[in-house]
Amino acid sequence: MPRRRKERLRVTRVEGLGDNRVTRTVFDELIVEEPMTIQLDGAIVSTTMRTPGHDFELAAGFCFSEGLLGAASVTGVRYCASGSAVDTEFNVVTVETGGRAPVPSPRLGTTSSSCGWCGSDQLDAMCDRLEPLAPTEPFDLDVLASIPQRMSSTQGLFTATGAVHAAAAFDRAGELIVVREDVGRHNAVDKVVGSMLIGGVGALPTDGLGLFVSGRASIEMVQKAWAAGFSTLVAVSAPTALAVDAARRAGLLLAGFVRDDGFNVYAPERISGDGSGRAGSRTGP
Amino acid sequence: MPRRRKERLRVTRVEGLGDNRVTRTVFDELIVEEPMTIQLDGAIVSTTMRTPGHDFELAAGFCFSEGLLGAASVTGVRYCASGSAVDTEFNVVTVETGGRAPVPSPRLGTTSSSCGWCGSDQLDAMCDRLEPLAPTEPFDLDVLASIPQRMSSTQGLFTATGAVHAAAAFDRAGELIVVREDVGRHNAVDKVVGSMLIGGVGALPTDGLGLFVSGRASIEMVQKAWAAGFSTLVAVSAPTALAVDAARRAGLLLAGFVRDDGFNVYAPERISGDGSGRAGSRTGP
Repeated sequence: MPRRRKERLRVTRVEGLGDNRVTRTVFDELIVEEPMTIQLDGAIVSTTMRTPGHDFELAAGFCFSEGLLGAASVTGVRYCASGSAVDTEFNVVTVETGGRAPVPSPRLGTTSSSCGWCGSDQLDAMCDRLEPLAPTEPFDLDVLASIPQRMSSTQGLFTATGAVHAAAAFDRAGELIVVREDVGRHNAVDKVVGSMLIGGVGALPTDGLGLFVSGRASIEMVQKAWAAGFSTLVAVSAPTALAVDAARRAGLLLAGFVRDDGFNVYAPERISGDGSGRAGSRTGP
Repeated sequence: MPRRRKERLRVTRVEGLGDNRVTRTVFDELIVEEPMTIQLDGAIVSTTMRTPGHDFELAAGFCFSEGLLGAASVTGVRYCASGSAVDTEFNVVTVETGGRAPVPSPRLGTTSSSCGWCGSDQLDAMCDRLEPLAPTEPFDLDVLASIPQRMSSTQGLFTATGAVHAAAAFDRAGELIVVREDVGRHNAVDKVVGSMLIGGVGALPTDGLGLFVSGRASIEMVQKAWAAGFSTLVAVSAPTALAVDAARRAGLLLAGFVRDDGFNVYAPERISGDGSGRAGSRTGP
């Protein structure tokens, strides 16, 4: 049964200042957020605030993207079903591998009690785990620029609530293969990846496909894109420095600030066409 | 020594489509993100991706907002200093209470292996821990509407990178008392709260003050505002349904979509002036 993902509330609308101020009661749709605990073979690996829906994709995609599955395949995904907690039994999802996934370590215990790790340590660990992406034919830049416009009609929850992030996989022609929205930006990506892992939408690795995110590109977004095998990551907002570092090491094309008037390519440092011909004429010294 | 909070990179700028496309190399400033582990009396309680700077405020504010301190006072905050790991020793911060804070439970272990909790359970737990806010004189609505404009000149990292969230405490006249930016929106709020807890900026509880957040208002933001005693929470973007529920139970005024052309008040359900006088003339049945 689909869970409720938005809620209609009566609110007060205020417009104008001082004597010109008008307040009125209006109805507004708000995004629902609920915690969801993800278990791997019965062991808790994460609790996340998420928008209900596509819960299994989220759970499986999370375990995959975070490297928790090792070489194991997902044999099943299910809600915790005690039979007694109707409202909450959909907030615990177990990903099953028949015990073949490595026993997960509690996250909080993985940082030792001595000094911690920095971003580059994190990146090194990521590079130990993930091979650089195989070179693929680059996307047409016009296609990359077109993705936000193509997305605009698909973001139903965003249109209604203004409070969700979106993620999508798209192909070389710019066709959107799967679109997911979630109150958590990481969750939206996990759902896209999960849809390819267990939802029958394409397959992993996502060779040659692109990943769109409606917000910023942090290192976690690059990690998730890299782990799933996307060749390109398109973000509406800014990437972080560590995300660019990771993308360059991954061989992932990272585009940010993708808006109506253009976008920035952050990785690789130079793209073909830059510094020659028409582009070069504007590059200067 | 202040840590680097932004990084200048050479990137490719792409503008226009097809034959009109121009690519050029430009320099761009990007926000730095680094993981930081927070310890409470030596026990790890969280690892968060954050923008370096105001780390002690972040650590202390987090422990406070999350209720980890109990009745204990913070007796000290320090970096882990092994003397050997120069680059990473600033990524572990220990909040000390001399052992008087409750022994923290690992987060992942607090969700039992039976069925999980839902948002209302979370809210109930919050209400068990936090008293409803004492009524205070409401803010002038013009003041609330003015906060984003007042903030605009203070968000240095945002202006440079476009990739950070901001939070601020403001008084009844709209004066900004403390402004913090962070790659994590929760972190920005924790830093504001931490600045009042240990930074000598005001005091906790923040009776009568308002809290501004540059993004959305999720339940965690309401929880943090409530725990610190703010009377009002102003968000540039949308709140979630659970956040509105929490704010109404807290007695917190929650305003969302605070933009140039007005804003919505989500909690309380009705504000004074709504349904009477000038406002009422537009309210209708």
